[in-house]
Amino acid sequence: MQAVELIRKKRDGDNLSTAEIDWLVDQYTQELIPDYQMSAWLMAVYWRGMNARETSDLTLAMAHSGEELHVRDTISPVVDKHSTGGVGDKVTLVVAPLVAACGVAVGKMTGRGLGHTGGTVDKLESIAGFRSALSREEFMRILLQHHIVLAGQSSHLAPADGKMYALRDVTGTIESIPLIAASIMSKKLAIGASHLLLDVKVGSGAFMKNVGQAWELAQTMVDIGRLAGLYTVAAITFMDQPLGCAIGNTLEMAEAISILHGEGPEDVTGLCHHEASELLVMTGAASTTSEAETRVEQAIRTGAAVAKLAEVVEAQGGNPHQIERPELLSKAPVRSMLLAPRSGYIAGIKAEQMGLASTRLGAGRFKKGEEIDHRTGFILQAKVGDYLQAGEPLVEVHARSESEAASIQDALLACYTWSEAPVVVGPLVYDIIRP
Amino acid sequence: MQAVELIRKKRDGDNLSTAEIDWLVDQYTQELIPDYQMSAWLMAVYWRGMNARETSDLTLAMAHSGEELHVRDTISPVVDKHSTGGVGDKVTLVVAPLVAACGVAVGKMTGRGLGHTGGTVDKLESIAGFRSALSREEFMRILLQHHIVLAGQSSHLAPADGKMYALRDVTGTIESIPLIAASIMSKKLAIGASHLLLDVKVGSGAFMKNVGQAWELAQTMVDIGRLAGLYTVAAITFMDQPLGCAIGNTLEMAEAISILHGEGPEDVTGLCHHEASELLVMTGAASTTSEAETRVEQAIRTGAAVAKLAEVVEAQGGNPHQIERPELLSKAPVRSMLLAPRSGYIAGIKAEQMGLASTRLGAGRFKKGEEIDHRTGFILQAKVGDYLQAGEPLVEVHARSESEAASIQDALLACYTWSEAPVVVGPLVYDIIRP
Repeated sequence: MQAVELIRKKRDGDNLSTAEIDWLVDQYTQELIPDYQMSAWLMAVYWRGMNARETSDLTLAMAHSGEELHVRDTISPVVDKHSTGGVGDKVTLVVAPLVAACGVAVGKMTGRGLGHTGGTVDKLESIAGFRSALSREEFMRILLQHHIVLAGQSSHLAPADGKMYALRDVTGTIESIPLIAASIMSKKLAIGASHLLLDVKVGSGAFMKNVGQAWELAQTMVDIGRLAGLYTVAAITFMDQPLGCAIGNTLEMAEAISILHGEGPEDVTGLCHHEASELLVMTGAASTTSEAETRVEQAIRTGAAVAKLAEVVEAQGGNPHQIERPELLSKAPVRSMLLAPRSGYIAGIKAEQMGLASTRLGAGRFKKGEEIDHRTGFILQAKVGDYLQAGEPLVEVHARSESEAASIQDALLACYTWSEAPVVVGPLVYDIIRP
Repeated sequence: MQAVELIRKKRDGDNLSTAEIDWLVDQYTQELIPDYQMSAWLMAVYWRGMNARETSDLTLAMAHSGEELHVRDTISPVVDKHSTGGVGDKVTLVVAPLVAACGVAVGKMTGRGLGHTGGTVDKLESIAGFRSALSREEFMRILLQHHIVLAGQSSHLAPADGKMYALRDVTGTIESIPLIAASIMSKKLAIGASHLLLDVKVGSGAFMKNVGQAWELAQTMVDIGRLAGLYTVAAITFMDQPLGCAIGNTLEMAEAISILHGEGPEDVTGLCHHEASELLVMTGAASTTSEAETRVEQAIRTGAAVAKLAEVVEAQGGNPHQIERPELLSKAPVRSMLLAPRSGYIAGIKAEQMGLASTRLGAGRFKKGEEIDHRTGFILQAKVGDYLQAGEPLVEVHARSESEAASIQDALLACYTWSEAPVVVGPLVYDIIRP
């Protein structure tokens, strides 16, 4: 086989065979195919696309390119979940312990934030002592012992994906549905859960800006799961305004704890319950949605869910007292309240701009590897559809200094649109795609 | 500017500005943009194309990437010619001295053969002592002194093209009309002739397989010439059967000498006269085509044309006696005659397969840098439209050994198609495109 032949084949709109895709990924991982050939192939894929079989082949080849955990061979069912990322998305922090408290094991690796979106690892690291970099042995031991583990993404898993993603990032080939789907799913397949719930975000604050793209990505990932033997369900959910009220790592951790106590904002609480129930039904732990919902509510009411979060935090070296008493979480030195500049109904809160504003406060990173300040961020005092009088609290800003807090005000106010007439807020979940 | 932005722009079907194209080529030549970004951009160009202004910008940027000879600043008019390559194409060997003998200077750099197509440099090097690698000073001195120079392509000219061509070759981005046009024209612009005649070959033995592609390539190059200030005319000519009768370096050299004596095969002789006349009219050396044709015939009849070839050969270190007495050219040890396997009219001679067969005999190279045997090749004893009785001579094979000559027979016979009915041969020139 010759790489240039496979580039030409895809360039001309033909499909690659399983053997050809395996060869390409294997040779590339071994650095026997240079970046300049892979980037030309990736641009041809961006142009011509891949069919379901090719996409699944690419995903499996990337999954097989490094270490594989096969967690479901040790414990089953064992679930994984993934969100394509948004602003204020602390759902994993809630759903993972909630499901584990209901008796279904959760083995998850999770990423860091970039640009306007946050990352679950960053949020977990707002807890003193929490360790996300786990060895394979630690990951498996904690999963077996506690039926929950929340690790950072290991670079030993699906190294072909890491190499290809870095290349796509600098060659204009990120925004391809089959390549995005293969990238996400390869890491999931390398972990080897039995069930996977995907949350594909759509809207102005998400990577997918319209429902058509989101639906295509969701369907592509569900298809990969079906062809690769991983039971996969995808929810398509809206990400136009931030999810919940907290944006920023420590603030989101605290909000997640509130949700586990049954005291969180309505929108994000509803989504967490929905996802947890879906996972219980998917795995057969509950036979109906209403049974699942009852069990989820019970885990919250009895404190079992929040206790599970404290348990996994402690198992990974974190201070469990910060879960039991979130007021112990470290706080930003400056808190200032931004007031509503006018009276009216909030018609929109631009999630992407709000996320970028929090990044400017230090809560996120513009480039990979940058240090962040876990304490900074925002707490929304009102959400879309709420009516405020001019001068009422709009956003609480948590900043490192008065000057940083002041410097962000105009950008924050620009995130809001207002309406004289009442604003109707639709449901968060747009669709669920099952295999 | 960022390379990834320019990749995205072309990927999305937008046009790049002149400044963006200049920057891209400059940074790539300086190795500040890596191959993996350039190959993604090239694939995006393959997909989206480039408009006339972008193509001209790319060509000029590549022409400016290295040394430039500006030959027309020293001698004017000075002509250049280029053929996109075929089998048996010895036209440059004839037209260059013919035009120079008519008083128009010719400053030409020329390439080597690859695959089924031959290269003018290889044919010239069949003359003992001939040197094609000339310094800039030698090139200019010979041109000024003899009004003709036939050098190998200098790697100092348009180095961006050399770098990009090598990359395109291994990334499936060769077959793009604007990229092909820019590659050819950048080298022509770097030499800086005042007039350029292009011979765009079309047909089964050419790079362009159909008239539509050839026309587009020809028009693109004429447009570049117009925008870049080089008076360019393109002839589109058929390359289905080999041109003339000789295939192979020494054999073609000898045939070129025959044509300069007015004793060559009809098809290639006609094309040589046509191109030489076109160049005389283009440059104003002749005011009408009939005047040009008269001068061309005169240069042949008086021996001035063949004397000019001997003169340039001598100026470049070659043995001029081999031009005066072509029987002194070195000969392959084995000559064997392949006979017609049947009676009938020759309906077709597949040029590409015939070229590949000569490459197998050592006359060409499958990979760049391979050594060739200048002596080997074929002399066709009959051409399309000729009637042969079974057993009459079909092809004279010039080989290194009896076994090599024998091994090629089946491939040679497979190049021929036959007809019971007479076969009409159309004209060689399909169209002429002028600015």
